[in-house]
Amino acid sequence: MRIELVNTGDELLLGDTINTNAAWIGQRIAALGLMVARQTIVSDGPVIKDAIAEAAARSDVVLVSGGLGPTNDDLTRESAAEILGLPLVQDPGITAHLEAFFAKRNRVMVASNLRQAMVPAGALVLDNPWGTAPGLYFPAELSHACGWNAHIFLLPGPPRELKPMMENLVEPRLRELLPDGASRRVLYLKITGVGESDIVEKVEKKLEAVPGLTLGYCIRQGDVDVRLSGQSEPVETGAAIVREHLGPCIVSEDRRMIEEVLVQTLADRGQWLSTAESCTGGFMASRITDVSGASRVFGHGIVTYANEAKQRHLGVSAQLLEQHGAVSEPVAAAMAEGVLAVSGADHALAITGIAGPTGGSEDKPVGTVFIGLASKGSATVVRRFFYPGSRDRFKLLSSQAALEMLRRRLFELPLA
Amino acid sequence: MRIELVNTGDELLLGDTINTNAAWIGQRIAALGLMVARQTIVSDGPVIKDAIAEAAARSDVVLVSGGLGPTNDDLTRESAAEILGLPLVQDPGITAHLEAFFAKRNRVMVASNLRQAMVPAGALVLDNPWGTAPGLYFPAELSHACGWNAHIFLLPGPPRELKPMMENLVEPRLRELLPDGASRRVLYLKITGVGESDIVEKVEKKLEAVPGLTLGYCIRQGDVDVRLSGQSEPVETGAAIVREHLGPCIVSEDRRMIEEVLVQTLADRGQWLSTAESCTGGFMASRITDVSGASRVFGHGIVTYANEAKQRHLGVSAQLLEQHGAVSEPVAAAMAEGVLAVSGADHALAITGIAGPTGGSEDKPVGTVFIGLASKGSATVVRRFFYPGSRDRFKLLSSQAALEMLRRRLFELPLA
Repeated sequence: MRIELVNTGDELLLGDTINTNAAWIGQRIAALGLMVARQTIVSDGPVIKDAIAEAAARSDVVLVSGGLGPTNDDLTRESAAEILGLPLVQDPGITAHLEAFFAKRNRVMVASNLRQAMVPAGALVLDNPWGTAPGLYFPAELSHACGWNAHIFLLPGPPRELKPMMENLVEPRLRELLPDGASRRVLYLKITGVGESDIVEKVEKKLEAVPGLTLGYCIRQGDVDVRLSGQSEPVETGAAIVREHLGPCIVSEDRRMIEEVLVQTLADRGQWLSTAESCTGGFMASRITDVSGASRVFGHGIVTYANEAKQRHLGVSAQLLEQHGAVSEPVAAAMAEGVLAVSGADHALAITGIAGPTGGSEDKPVGTVFIGLASKGSATVVRRFFYPGSRDRFKLLSSQAALEMLRRRLFELPLA
Repeated sequence: MRIELVNTGDELLLGDTINTNAAWIGQRIAALGLMVARQTIVSDGPVIKDAIAEAAARSDVVLVSGGLGPTNDDLTRESAAEILGLPLVQDPGITAHLEAFFAKRNRVMVASNLRQAMVPAGALVLDNPWGTAPGLYFPAELSHACGWNAHIFLLPGPPRELKPMMENLVEPRLRELLPDGASRRVLYLKITGVGESDIVEKVEKKLEAVPGLTLGYCIRQGDVDVRLSGQSEPVETGAAIVREHLGPCIVSEDRRMIEEVLVQTLADRGQWLSTAESCTGGFMASRITDVSGASRVFGHGIVTYANEAKQRHLGVSAQLLEQHGAVSEPVAAAMAEGVLAVSGADHALAITGIAGPTGGSEDKPVGTVFIGLASKGSATVVRRFFYPGSRDRFKLLSSQAALEMLRRRLFELPLA
């Protein structure tokens, strides 16, 4: 099934949001085990007509987003109707929805808003409880007169309207269009602590040899999702291969991020985590508190950017700092043990390193980081890592390595 | 000047990176005061030929990225040569560069790598000291035989190669192609603390009335860049309009983010900032420490997610917590004053609120946040804000409001 995306938006805004939408839709399509064959982004206006027609002539499914709003530039609805030769008729259901929407907000509905109630004859309305512009679905039959056989979906551009409509109203229809859609499975194995090239080397050839299995990757800094899709059996075969060769590196099989896995595991065990951060400056604490429910497991996070703060809040001795330097194995251990003691937590992670761009030395170049893990009743461990590059990347990879050290301790896996 | 982008990449990876590249190129083009008319993304392979030819037939400039690597799917170079009817010849300079690149890394160069040394006759090589695949530039004359008049640039896909090549080798040539390229100016006014629709209402009509001024927006959560481009005079006229109507909300006129402005201003004055965070969980400290040089102004950041932590580290009294609740004006003030005292800083910001999804009440629904600002020798102020929605958005907007309170104090602007 060949799928194309067409995205449109205000040319004053062209760029980030529209590309983010497109990337998001691409990931949703991939989660169905399908690929987007081509993606076209144009500014709002007459050019949308060409873009839709070209895509429809080549494809089985065309997903269009944007250009359904009330302004004169929002021509997606009219363009689709014109291409397919369908008259526009006012839809009473949408009209009532619009009237209610504006009344509820005490806003006046102007005539241009009513354009959103015009529906090309034969198209099916996709309700939009999340905003004003409904989506539209043109079954492939409506394109036969043009010599095409394309199912065309028109979706709103604002992400908070686009996303629920895609998930709730479009994806079920795409599944119906797939011969094996109902029984198709997708599994994401989230891997951390090994490089992309290692993953490719260890499993790619073996996975490609499984008949009926579609392989994909979603690579981020810090982890990689290996995406397996197909019928149940090949997906299970593929998962077994990944587990065999990369088992200890699998963080989750349900897309949960490492911080989600940790918060849930600690909560299940009734345990608490504290953090002490120097070079990552609160980024690790922020990742943990991104997880809803973090307050059940995380109470204290100390950002000791200055040496004096390491002494005052964590009890790291001036002598230790003097003798080994703030970026050192003994200081990482003392920070972890310090925050463990002061907070009464069960586990504590500490990070001290050199984010750069200045502050490096020959022994400890920019990118050097020491991570300490202290737990009640276990020996404190410290590991040294090296993440040169931007500050963003340094903070992300350092916090990832720290969280992974804790995950391995919680699940009794060997430390890397 | 009509510009199109064509991006290509490994279909196993299609999505994020390629869209991020495309959005980034779009922003660079916008910074030249130009617009990308259409953007096409296809997977590596033969389809790249169609995409380039279609774009070249419609455009003055086509920027292609991706597909210059050594694998069989990397067909961009060959596709461009074929479209324009140019034979491929081996380039001795690139060959030498490749041999040196591999020798330096002790890696063996295989025959497929040599494909990167094949250059369509007449195309100009864009050196790539950042990787192996050189870029190529086809001046418009090379497309005349096809009946087109398009300058075509082929650029590598990996961001760390694409970005410097775009900035250093492509943009100077684009400027040369613009009649007024050399004297064109672009100014970004970064606005915070007012909504997009307010910005539009206050200045858009006035800016659109300035002859020769091109207007654009880059909207993020927390702030908006108003982008003015054109010749010096209209850009200055536009900037004066924005300053007149939105003056106190202008964070920077050089794209610096609010945390960069604060770190630099505090460093210039020799002042220190400390933070105490509950609901934002370290996100504000992390933003501050994203700025290189933050260690000159930021020493202590305390994440007191638990009430017990607010008492222990910040000296907030149990009675105050009991009487008003942790999310309250008095507790926000006590947190700010507590971390100011314990750290000896000149300024302290404190945030306490309800990130959700649970924990709200009728009085204080999810999204409620109190922000305290304490400074040596000034009265402590607290402001209440309301940011319902996702946790990400809550953390970003809450920290933005806090940083903006400090900015207004530092620059003696009225608090919102």
